[in-house]
Amino acid sequence: MSFQPPLSGKEQDETEEFRPKFDAHGLIAAVAQDADTGDVLMLAWMNAEALTATLETGRATYWSRSRGKLWVKGETSGHFQDVIEVYTDCDQDAVVMKIRQTDAACHTGRKSCFYRRVDGTNRLVKTDS
Amino acid sequence: MSFQPPLSGKEQDETEEFRPKFDAHGLIAAVAQDADTGDVLMLAWMNAEALTATLETGRATYWSRSRGKLWVKGETSGHFQDVIEVYTDCDQDAVVMKIRQTDAACHTGRKSCFYRRVDGTNRLVKTDS
Repeated sequence: MSFQPPLSGKEQDETEEFRPKFDAHGLIAAVAQDADTGDVLMLAWMNAEALTATLETGRATYWSRSRGKLWVKGETSGHFQDVIEVYTDCDQDAVVMKIRQTDAACHTGRKSCFYRRVDGTNRLVKTDS
Repeated sequence: MSFQPPLSGKEQDETEEFRPKFDAHGLIAAVAQDADTGDVLMLAWMNAEALTATLETGRATYWSRSRGKLWVKGETSGHFQDVIEVYTDCDQDAVVMKIRQTDAACHTGRKSCFYRRVDGTNRLVKTDS
């Protein structure tokens, strides 16, 4: 699969063609949301190859910015993300995936990466302890 | 408010200090999630100033990459986002805000920016029509 380039303004907002708008690094933001609970589990990045793989295989696949390589979520941990639905936003520079998570989404072993609440100015409160 | 620099690895994962990890452009991704329904309404960007303003005012404030300026969501439309809670992820390069949205989050007038489902390879299906 290859993607058509994005349109501009209202055309991009209203088109029924998927024309993802990758940033200068060739990436879009991808949010993984639990299909059952609605909890946001993680946010990571996809390039065109990762996005294509996600759509074609039904398993969330990201681009690891730190490792500079394609990353099938769960390929080492077994913590796969089965993709139920994918949505894109008005300018198509982000996707939200409704997923079913095997075990933990977070590499720390927690279900979600968002396990700390910002408390006031510069403190975090862990919500799992 | 000024932020401390991020730590590395497990220290960043487990600290109870908020040390947001801004990217090379000084930005982090910010997800606005409806506090009541759990729907993801939009994804945008914050620099340190926008993040500070969000935390201090309780109104979601972003950095507009296209306009190159701080952007209090709703300042022109009246469609404010009142922030109930803010969560950050393991490496602190993203935040999820639980918000209450006045009217529409999307500039198209829709409640959510994620109003199109990716259908197969390169088609979108509007979910509001």
